[in-house]
Amino acid sequence: MTIEARSDLRCDVLLTNAIVLTMDDGFTIHHAGGVAIAGNSIAAVGPAALAYSAADVVDCRGRVVLPGLVNAHTHVPMALLRGLADDMRLDVWLMGYMMPVEREFVNPDFVRLGTRLGCAEMIRSGVTCFADMYYFEEAVAEATVGAGLRALCAQTVLRFPAPDAASYEDSLALARDFIMRWRDHPLIVPAPAPHAPYTCTPEILRACAELAAEFDVPLHTHLSETLLEVEASRQTHGMPVIPWVKKQGLFGAKVLAAHCVHVDDGEMRALKNAGAGVAHNPTSNLKLGAGIAPVVRMLALGLDVGIGTDGAASNNDLDMFEETRLAALLAKGIGNDPTALPARDALAMATRLGARALHMGHLTGSLEPGKRADLIVLDLDTLHNVPSFGRDPGAIYAQIVYASKSTDVLDVMCNGQWLMRERALLTLNEAELREAAREYARRIDAFLGSRELSVLQKLIAIGGAIEEESFEVQVKARVPSVEQVIAVIEGDEMTVVRASRYHQFDTYWSFADPAQGRLRYREDEFLDEAGTVTGARTRLTLTGRTREETFGAVLLSRSRYLAPALHSARFYREYFRPAAEHVIEKQRRRWLVAYHGVEFYLHLDCLLNPPTEGFFLEVKSRTWSRRDARDKAAVITELLARFGASPDDTLSDSYVELVAGTDRPAS
Amino acid sequence: MTIEARSDLRCDVLLTNAIVLTMDDGFTIHHAGGVAIAGNSIAAVGPAALAYSAADVVDCRGRVVLPGLVNAHTHVPMALLRGLADDMRLDVWLMGYMMPVEREFVNPDFVRLGTRLGCAEMIRSGVTCFADMYYFEEAVAEATVGAGLRALCAQTVLRFPAPDAASYEDSLALARDFIMRWRDHPLIVPAPAPHAPYTCTPEILRACAELAAEFDVPLHTHLSETLLEVEASRQTHGMPVIPWVKKQGLFGAKVLAAHCVHVDDGEMRALKNAGAGVAHNPTSNLKLGAGIAPVVRMLALGLDVGIGTDGAASNNDLDMFEETRLAALLAKGIGNDPTALPARDALAMATRLGARALHMGHLTGSLEPGKRADLIVLDLDTLHNVPSFGRDPGAIYAQIVYASKSTDVLDVMCNGQWLMRERALLTLNEAELREAAREYARRIDAFLGSRELSVLQKLIAIGGAIEEESFEVQVKARVPSVEQVIAVIEGDEMTVVRASRYHQFDTYWSFADPAQGRLRYREDEFLDEAGTVTGARTRLTLTGRTREETFGAVLLSRSRYLAPALHSARFYREYFRPAAEHVIEKQRRRWLVAYHGVEFYLHLDCLLNPPTEGFFLEVKSRTWSRRDARDKAAVITELLARFGASPDDTLSDSYVELVAGTDRPAS
Repeated sequence: MTIEARSDLRCDVLLTNAIVLTMDDGFTIHHAGGVAIAGNSIAAVGPAALAYSAADVVDCRGRVVLPGLVNAHTHVPMALLRGLADDMRLDVWLMGYMMPVEREFVNPDFVRLGTRLGCAEMIRSGVTCFADMYYFEEAVAEATVGAGLRALCAQTVLRFPAPDAASYEDSLALARDFIMRWRDHPLIVPAPAPHAPYTCTPEILRACAELAAEFDVPLHTHLSETLLEVEASRQTHGMPVIPWVKKQGLFGAKVLAAHCVHVDDGEMRALKNAGAGVAHNPTSNLKLGAGIAPVVRMLALGLDVGIGTDGAASNNDLDMFEETRLAALLAKGIGNDPTALPARDALAMATRLGARALHMGHLTGSLEPGKRADLIVLDLDTLHNVPSFGRDPGAIYAQIVYASKSTDVLDVMCNGQWLMRERALLTLNEAELREAAREYARRIDAFLGSRELSVLQKLIAIGGAIEEESFEVQVKARVPSVEQVIAVIEGDEMTVVRASRYHQFDTYWSFADPAQGRLRYREDEFLDEAGTVTGARTRLTLTGRTREETFGAVLLSRSRYLAPALHSARFYREYFRPAAEHVIEKQRRRWLVAYHGVEFYLHLDCLLNPPTEGFFLEVKSRTWSRRDARDKAAVITELLARFGASPDDTLSDSYVELVAGTDRPAS
Repeated sequence: MTIEARSDLRCDVLLTNAIVLTMDDGFTIHHAGGVAIAGNSIAAVGPAALAYSAADVVDCRGRVVLPGLVNAHTHVPMALLRGLADDMRLDVWLMGYMMPVEREFVNPDFVRLGTRLGCAEMIRSGVTCFADMYYFEEAVAEATVGAGLRALCAQTVLRFPAPDAASYEDSLALARDFIMRWRDHPLIVPAPAPHAPYTCTPEILRACAELAAEFDVPLHTHLSETLLEVEASRQTHGMPVIPWVKKQGLFGAKVLAAHCVHVDDGEMRALKNAGAGVAHNPTSNLKLGAGIAPVVRMLALGLDVGIGTDGAASNNDLDMFEETRLAALLAKGIGNDPTALPARDALAMATRLGARALHMGHLTGSLEPGKRADLIVLDLDTLHNVPSFGRDPGAIYAQIVYASKSTDVLDVMCNGQWLMRERALLTLNEAELREAAREYARRIDAFLGSRELSVLQKLIAIGGAIEEESFEVQVKARVPSVEQVIAVIEGDEMTVVRASRYHQFDTYWSFADPAQGRLRYREDEFLDEAGTVTGARTRLTLTGRTREETFGAVLLSRSRYLAPALHSARFYREYFRPAAEHVIEKQRRRWLVAYHGVEFYLHLDCLLNPPTEGFFLEVKSRTWSRRDARDKAAVITELLARFGASPDDTLSDSYVELVAGTDRPAS
């Protein structure tokens, strides 16, 4: 096609001789087509563009031009935490690694560097617009503008203290301030980001929705990411997540909801009716074991579903080519239907639908006159793209989705500005970014490294409990007769202060370095006289492996750390990665008695697992000084004799040594 | 670490200053380590290597050296068919596109070029060994040796004629000949490849197993890829696939089984007991909607499970980095367990376990003294790899699996020979390959393009049925009374030759170009007198849209193509992609009668869908000449009157025109 350029139609940049995938509603493709760019916008596309003249005419030499990809959900500064911790369950990953490191390191400098690093990677992989959610979002916005990208920047609001706010009121004020100052920016759309229903209060959700509505900006959040979240919502609120947030007024705003993995048909319709966009994050959802979102059904219902990488800490890259391919493949695999989510529709999710999900469809996502000039040029001459077939006009979509790589992106333009030409970044200095990122990684490594030198430090790092050193004198011995023990306890010389019964499950973890001590996770079931369970609690105890001293058979030992266990045994196992694990199950009768003016705990134990003949009696008392310990040890020795136990038939401090022979401390 | 090179320890190539991931059984990693290569083998790894001196010392400058990846299942020449047809169901893809094109184009030249193209792509992405299955396997082997790669080359054996063999006896002879001539080759391990249980006979399976056992070579096959295959095996053989092939003696050979998507615990144990290796192909299995193989369970049972790309026609690339990442992600996603298949184990599948699955574990898959020097050098300094954390020694596996790309591969060595240095291929000419591949694509496009110009040609292309032109005179008219029709049929002037009843479901497909005619897919249920279904058949008819001629109300029409429908309505719909579809359901009584010495078919129809009042009578007869047609038309007009039908109340040739108003041919 030859159209003479008319001198009265001038633009700034004219791309010619391209296969132009407009990704418009009709999926128009122009062969040997052009794109005319005037200022920051598209003036014309296709044959009409070739009527323009421009000072800067770029011959695309048959390459493919398409809209810049839209990364519909990420936490871009987390590029700095890429690969920090992998193959872990969400709670261990989040509470054991991400949150402690974020508490220590996240500040505006971290956020700016992480954003620049992430933007560099996204530009290289053809992204021109992304939806972010993080702390210090203003720093994200500044760095994004510096890189030249377009973004929905959403300021996180949480009910907990965050790196950038001591309270949620502070976060909300920060969000309002940020929105007011950035709402007219040509590249940035500011927004509030109530993090998730389970990390926010109903007031936060409502306040964020009202804030977004007040300034007519979107609202970015995580919804229904895991089954756990949905189950908890059903238990707490009597309904799943979507109806609950609807009830809190969240849909008064233009919502961009990340994940929506576990939503039913009714919930999808509710999202559609609310005009909400959805960000599908297939890699992150698989990697964290969250599941697979029903995107084929969402698309059938007319929802705007974009594709997101999520943060690089759970992906571990920001590659929209990989993400789009995975979305297309997964839809087929789980539906047993190879015709599901064809390549063209997957690419639409990564462009036009993604922009609409961000409520930025009027600005970007397709190549149409009037939209911003956000576009990329692909080199499909690389080996893994060869050959290609022209028979089916739709084959080009399949080629891009199933064969092309992000490294095939040659040129990137956003808002009319070139950000990359011939694979060279124009707005960012890669070498500097790499070096600065490495320096952060060294510091984070040192922080985690020093923490990981000690089980105690790792325990403190996850917070939520207090370090407490307590010293005890104690002895554990076989007793020949339960009746004799009871008789002594009920005798005249003893006063029973308290009596109780338990069914105890103790999990003992030991470490390659015995100096680390031993960690015990104890689950107590409280029993009544009849043996019925009336309650339960879990406690975590880190015990030093060295006996402080012995007084005959009586040990003076130190319990370095004692706290309610806030997480599951599974959490601690995955977090501490012990070298060995042993489990003890027992029935315990416990008495707090006063004897000669001193309080002692008496534990009469029957071991169920490992099944052990006979009964054990443990006598212990807190102590404060070596002298006090010596005195109490003398009393304990005397008591043992009364209970009929021989001081020669004692155990060292823990039953675990019955099962973990080689684990016994050196004497 | 500084170790003086000893002059008595000389090797040919010495890699130094590398992070060496040996991928040995203990997952040994050497930092600032080396690899000493003597001839085609590894002489030493780690500190021991640094004692060697060499003329060629390569300073790896802190980069990562690991074993070359093992692509455990592919059809490498199909690189030439990449992107030929996508987003289709397996049968449409295979029978509609792959097989017709393979019948037309596959010859030794095609196979050599496709292999060179595929090898170039695999070298670029760090593969040094692959398991192939195709036709003209000797040409695959020759081209692979030319590229310098190691491969298990398996000659396909099928019960159908194949591009390289008219019969399965010929295939078997070809396989035997190939194995005898190549079994001592330093790079190639030849093998027979009975394609799959459902494309082979029991004799083929047994003969291939015996052939493999005779020469002590592996046997490569596809097992349990789809649920359909397993269900069919249960129905035909009364057992699923694995026990059935075991019964046929397949496990007398060292089997490499591709897919194994639908296998239960017992079948996995049977594979393990047989010493079989498994090739997991996650992209292909997702893309074709086959499902997701239970690899976590397989690994727990101790099976050697490798990772394969499958052919580039169903992937659409040969990128083992993507494949390994997908394997790791999928295992977590479907198990709801982010700790499942951690990165280290996924990378082991792509290296050591893959080599073992190919029964080539003694040659390759890990960096250990005595094994062949098959290794790659990775540049982890690229943006998407930055930063990285040193805290956890296993983090390097996560970085490679979750963040790195095939384009990070810098250098590739196979059998002690460099195949790529600094991303430049040394054994293949990329530009030539690209141009030759494009030329093939042009020819294939032309072949398919001419075929797709005509529905008839597309129908013939999928084979299995005969073109048959038949001319008929026919009329269809409303009849006022069923009783009157029956009375005439049972009257004296007619002889009933045959009578039958049907319940008919007709699917009509029309095309944008009406000249293409109309395709009818008819499902007949045979009914007995009581209306019970006694049998069924499906038939496909392509009808020309133009009436040849009319004689009053009687039409002379042409049925251009008539055949039993070998595939499902769904298959034809997806293959032909019609512009419109209409469905008619009716009850039909049919008589073959002789009237005045001429045979006529009488169809008395009651339309159920669309529900239509009254009855229609169709009268038709085959014809051979215009004169015969005119004579029969006169008789038909006379008959119509007897049946009480008015010649003014006739329909044109098909009921579909009752429902497809706009679809009516121009009169």
